Amino acid sequence: MIVLVLNCGSSSIKYKVFETINGPEVVAKGLIERIGLTDSIITHKPKGKDTYKAINDIPDHTIGINCVIEVLLDKEHGVLKNIKDIKAVGHRVAHGGENFITSVLIDESVKRDIENCSELAPLHNPANLKGILSVERLIPGIPQVAVFDTSFHQTMPDFAYMYAIPYEYYKKYRIRKYGFHGTSHKFVAQKAAEMIGKKFEDLKIITCHLGNGASVAAIENGKSFDTSMGFTPVDGLIMGTRTGEIDPGVLIYIADKEHLNVKGVSNMINKKSGVMGITNLSSDMRDLEKAAYEGNERAILALNMYAYRVKKFIGAYIAALNGVDLLVFTGGVGENDFNLRKLICSEMDFLGIDFDEDMNDGVKGKDAVLTRPGSRATAVVVTTDEELVIATDTRNIVMAN
Amino acid sequence: MIVLVLNCGSSSIKYKVFETINGPEVVAKGLIERIGLTDSIITHKPKGKDTYKAINDIPDHTIGINCVIEVLLDKEHGVLKNIKDIKAVGHRVAHGGENFITSVLIDESVKRDIENCSELAPLHNPANLKGILSVERLIPGIPQVAVFDTSFHQTMPDFAYMYAIPYEYYKKYRIRKYGFHGTSHKFVAQKAAEMIGKKFEDLKIITCHLGNGASVAAIENGKSFDTSMGFTPVDGLIMGTRTGEIDPGVLIYIADKEHLNVKGVSNMINKKSGVMGITNLSSDMRDLEKAAYEGNERAILALNMYAYRVKKFIGAYIAALNGVDLLVFTGGVGENDFNLRKLICSEMDFLGIDFDEDMNDGVKGKDAVLTRPGSRATAVVVTTDEELVIATDTRNIVMAN
Repeated sequence: MIVLVLNCGSSSIKYKVFETINGPEVVAKGLIERIGLTDSIITHKPKGKDTYKAINDIPDHTIGINCVIEVLLDKEHGVLKNIKDIKAVGHRVAHGGENFITSVLIDESVKRDIENCSELAPLHNPANLKGILSVERLIPGIPQVAVFDTSFHQTMPDFAYMYAIPYEYYKKYRIRKYGFHGTSHKFVAQKAAEMIGKKFEDLKIITCHLGNGASVAAIENGKSFDTSMGFTPVDGLIMGTRTGEIDPGVLIYIADKEHLNVKGVSNMINKKSGVMGITNLSSDMRDLEKAAYEGNERAILALNMYAYRVKKFIGAYIAALNGVDLLVFTGGVGENDFNLRKLICSEMDFLGIDFDEDMNDGVKGKDAVLTRPGSRATAVVVTTDEELVIATDTRNIVMAN
Repeated sequence: MIVLVLNCGSSSIKYKVFETINGPEVVAKGLIERIGLTDSIITHKPKGKDTYKAINDIPDHTIGINCVIEVLLDKEHGVLKNIKDIKAVGHRVAHGGENFITSVLIDESVKRDIENCSELAPLHNPANLKGILSVERLIPGIPQVAVFDTSFHQTMPDFAYMYAIPYEYYKKYRIRKYGFHGTSHKFVAQKAAEMIGKKFEDLKIITCHLGNGASVAAIENGKSFDTSMGFTPVDGLIMGTRTGEIDPGVLIYIADKEHLNVKGVSNMINKKSGVMGITNLSSDMRDLEKAAYEGNERAILALNMYAYRVKKFIGAYIAALNGVDLLVFTGGVGENDFNLRKLICSEMDFLGIDFDEDMNDGVKGKDAVLTRPGSRATAVVVTTDEELVIATDTRNIVMAN
């Protein structure tokens, strides 16, 4: 069964085509950039063939998805014979609010709910919906599935997801912690459980998805119990350009002194903070690792701050779960930055993590165990694959319906 | 040696008189309220005599402290024969910025530094300074000592005290974590170490000062390593009316939707949030315990949220210190609310805290051990006494000079 996975952003479409018969396998993937601007770029990577790149004017998502279909059917670069080979389309949807606790088959009411959550993810949900409507137009009648970034975290207890602000703002605006990266947290937690030969549902797992955005999740008996991103993706960890959770008094002080309005403060916490703000050098951990190695004091500070925040979240979630069996690192930074993993995990033996520096050293982008045999908790690196989850959920839901 | 301890607020003066010869002993204490308003109230409690209450117009701090001196010398209600019996005055000073790592004898340069920190504590430092200048005028030549709420935390490493905001704001405004309640954290940590017959300097201690304001501190080898209050006293834990640390995106969203300016947001996070905001009932944990007992769902939620935040901080600080020997509860809530302590400490055995519900049950306002013998970490209740620390520091510094 061929499944097309789409991740529609405001000016981009990422796609992957899976053949799901013998375990999902990618047969093509690609990216359209600069939708709505001139000279949109399509980069198409068919399996076993050369990468194809083209420049077109792509004014909207419908024309963008049509381009994807055309290139998938193309005699030279394509991987499909007929559009009807695609049996289902799975969409990454940023925000499901409080409505969705699992992935779902898209119908009119689901579309309405996605639209209703647009206020909560104004950059993402409208683009996700555009993708869904475009597919409806281009491949009438095809089943579509929505896989939400938030749904895995809908199992959090109220005391974990509520903020200590006036309750009326929850009633009025649904302000609460939603969490993101749910697809990734669930996927790597399951994969890590398999790695150690145990059942996902029997374990206490802490997953660190450290990438451009970054979040930690506490998972118990297969359910998300808490996560560090909140109402917005700025909450929690220090990120490339985001503050993470912070003393709100700091924002008040800066807004007052610097005469910043709401937009100015939003820009500061989203785009000018994080490790970029600390170093004034880069938001990319690879650059900071290099600078720190060369003795740059601010880069050293930024790495230490980043790692210390992750370390504290791990401790907090061990307290929340009263234990941990598995500690999982994933995402671009989590999978590759072994120095950062060392900063986070060293001197954690009181918490049952007997970190093995030698086993960690040099591990980049592959699954690996990081703790010594006999460690009370096992720390691992697991590569994530959100599209694979979307393809699997899509197949399963379509098959069941 | 008689020491007068003063805690001058913007419209109040708290005082205690200590005889420090045979271990500090309180000989009188009292409070002036409504300074600068009409009908100021003085409440005076001399040891072994009846409480005396009077209403006067007290337009400023100098007249207020003069009233204190008068009542201390009063034939009927007083405890001193001569003003010269007072050998030193110790002041609680809210903010010492980065200048003070210990209590100090006050001279011109110290007064300048306290004034320079007024921007960081605009409600408190100016009042503290007024108190110092008033004593200079009223008891010329008397040695005065400043005991800072922040100084104990000046040992924090940079990765614990820096925020992930643009670095220029640290250089320009000294925006960093300072922490507060330092006098209390240090005092109860030392007292708890004595309780278990160990040296303060050899232990890993986590102190929870839970009162109207609330903060947690991580103390290693006698030094503060981290604390939950930050640049302002809104950071960290959920409090009576304060949010604690939060997703800054939440504030942006509310400010935008509700058209709040800086003052409006400040008012919201400081005065309308915390357990008061959640329940719309009370900021006092005793009221909430009662309401929760009667089944009020929001009160139950607020208590769970409050306890869960403390629990997570304890876990975070155990990770930061790679262990914990002593867990200390103090402050009005920490000393008295045994139900809350139970919510915080139950199911913490993975972290080495073998909490004994029976020993905890009913313990109010007295020192007690809360864990079973053999527990890896010992949890205790310790009553705090900030004025005692100020009196002791004052005597020691004056004696050494």
